[in-house]
Amino acid sequence: MNPPGTQADFAALAAPLRKLVEAELRRLIRLPQEPDARGWFCPRRLQQAMVYSLLAGGKRLRPLVVLFAAQGCGGSAEEALPAACAVEMIHTYSLIHDDLPAMDDDDLRRGRATLHRAFDEATAILAGDALLTLAFEVLTTTVRPAPVAAQCAAVLARAAGACGMVGGQADDLAAEGQQGTLEQLQAIHRRKTAALFSASAQLGALCAGASPEQTKLLARYGQCLGLAFQIRDDLLDRHGQEAQLGKRVGKDDRRGKLTYPALLGKEASWEKAKHWADQALEALARSGAEHPGLVALARFVLERNQ
Amino acid sequence: MNPPGTQADFAALAAPLRKLVEAELRRLIRLPQEPDARGWFCPRRLQQAMVYSLLAGGKRLRPLVVLFAAQGCGGSAEEALPAACAVEMIHTYSLIHDDLPAMDDDDLRRGRATLHRAFDEATAILAGDALLTLAFEVLTTTVRPAPVAAQCAAVLARAAGACGMVGGQADDLAAEGQQGTLEQLQAIHRRKTAALFSASAQLGALCAGASPEQTKLLARYGQCLGLAFQIRDDLLDRHGQEAQLGKRVGKDDRRGKLTYPALLGKEASWEKAKHWADQALEALARSGAEHPGLVALARFVLERNQ
Repeated sequence: MNPPGTQADFAALAAPLRKLVEAELRRLIRLPQEPDARGWFCPRRLQQAMVYSLLAGGKRLRPLVVLFAAQGCGGSAEEALPAACAVEMIHTYSLIHDDLPAMDDDDLRRGRATLHRAFDEATAILAGDALLTLAFEVLTTTVRPAPVAAQCAAVLARAAGACGMVGGQADDLAAEGQQGTLEQLQAIHRRKTAALFSASAQLGALCAGASPEQTKLLARYGQCLGLAFQIRDDLLDRHGQEAQLGKRVGKDDRRGKLTYPALLGKEASWEKAKHWADQALEALARSGAEHPGLVALARFVLERNQ
Repeated sequence: MNPPGTQADFAALAAPLRKLVEAELRRLIRLPQEPDARGWFCPRRLQQAMVYSLLAGGKRLRPLVVLFAAQGCGGSAEEALPAACAVEMIHTYSLIHDDLPAMDDDDLRRGRATLHRAFDEATAILAGDALLTLAFEVLTTTVRPAPVAAQCAAVLARAAGACGMVGGQADDLAAEGQQGTLEQLQAIHRRKTAALFSASAQLGALCAGASPEQTKLLARYGQCLGLAFQIRDDLLDRHGQEAQLGKRVGKDDRRGKLTYPALLGKEASWEKAKHWADQALEALARSGAEHPGLVALARFVLERNQ
């Protein structure tokens, strides 16, 4: 296989799957607004808040990793679709909570007002909580067979929890204004960003019934991809365009965040990002699940301007 | 069986199981603080925050419902213990987030400073997120067999999510300062409080391998118990003692909350609470899982002063 790797190739491979994801997210977020037999229903405003953030037209990179990985392991996108949506719900909740005044205090996300600005802070906290919870409901009610559902939920919970994404975000906040080391920075990136990418690839493999060895190598692909992605993210915050990114730039420096460009400069950061993308491709090659979408993605995270 | 029903009886039945729960929570919350093979670990301060709230000596009523229900269905407390701990983690996260300045803005909980006062707001948000996530990790990694784990996670996610607990909390906040009806108030209580009690009883039954019919009746027991509990909670906020409760009293009225005493007065509220406790006992009797602990609990929620 001689897979493509340009941004245009990535876009072509991603488009049909992204459409699947968008449609499924739209379906899953339609929560009952009339009481069921137990008197349970979702308040209209809460539902609107969840929709506002979940259907804001993100890049859907993590769901794409799930679906490409499933296909790469010989499975179908359809059987991995609930897992792809669950990962995007976790990602969206994390953005909502990270944007809160007590955290990164952002007012712009995906080209429009952050959720707590468009609605209010209490609604933003609750919508985040609800999306996080919904991710596990979706996984455990729709992934089949049930033992795979439980395994997916366990993998996602570990990656998203105190030792993974939430822990990384906590250390990211704690590092603000501090003199940090490269080791500390990488420990933050590994958990804040790479953990969820890693879980995404792993979930795709699990849904496709991949072997433990293949699953492990895909998890490593996701981890390395996530590290490359986050360094590029740091670079874009310093050198990118606000209009293209749909979020404020320069805020890392203003908040005294520990970032690659602040620590190593632009060139060395760029090298690091390339290093991790190469590592991702190496793990991918060894996995035998070398889906062209996963190859293209490792290029895309370096070239992206948004 | 002629089960006991006084507060002293409840205390005697609860004590050994509470000890089990405390020990298991203490074990589960001990998260790795050194990087694993993927570089994941829990920041020390985040872990301390989670411990601060989780091991603050709550009444552990929801875990007790899980364990009594499991025993009532012929199962063991040990096999239901992970589910009991997961429910308490969900409950604790909900208290942490509800106490935040953007929500109920409370400074006192279980006799000491709320988490965002003792630590800071960002840490409180993240510790809540982490406990919510950990609940699903615990369920899906320790409940056996795996299909039961998936089922437990699905039940808990539904009860805790947008249509359940989170939705109830959202409507509770929205109703502040509004002229509300009894119907609206009950819709709030059914989701904000009763949903998690209902899920607790259901989880106990599921872990014990109970029949769908028995599980359903125990879920109803939990729902009715939760409604009685919340009315008593409303009454305690108006007529209880701050020192005994370990939290502020009179705050419902100050915030213009929709509550039973505000809507119906003390006597009629009391009657409603008794009504739901009786309904709980009726469902319990029909379930055939009439554990003395569950019977005593239906009395305790009426008599409790804390």
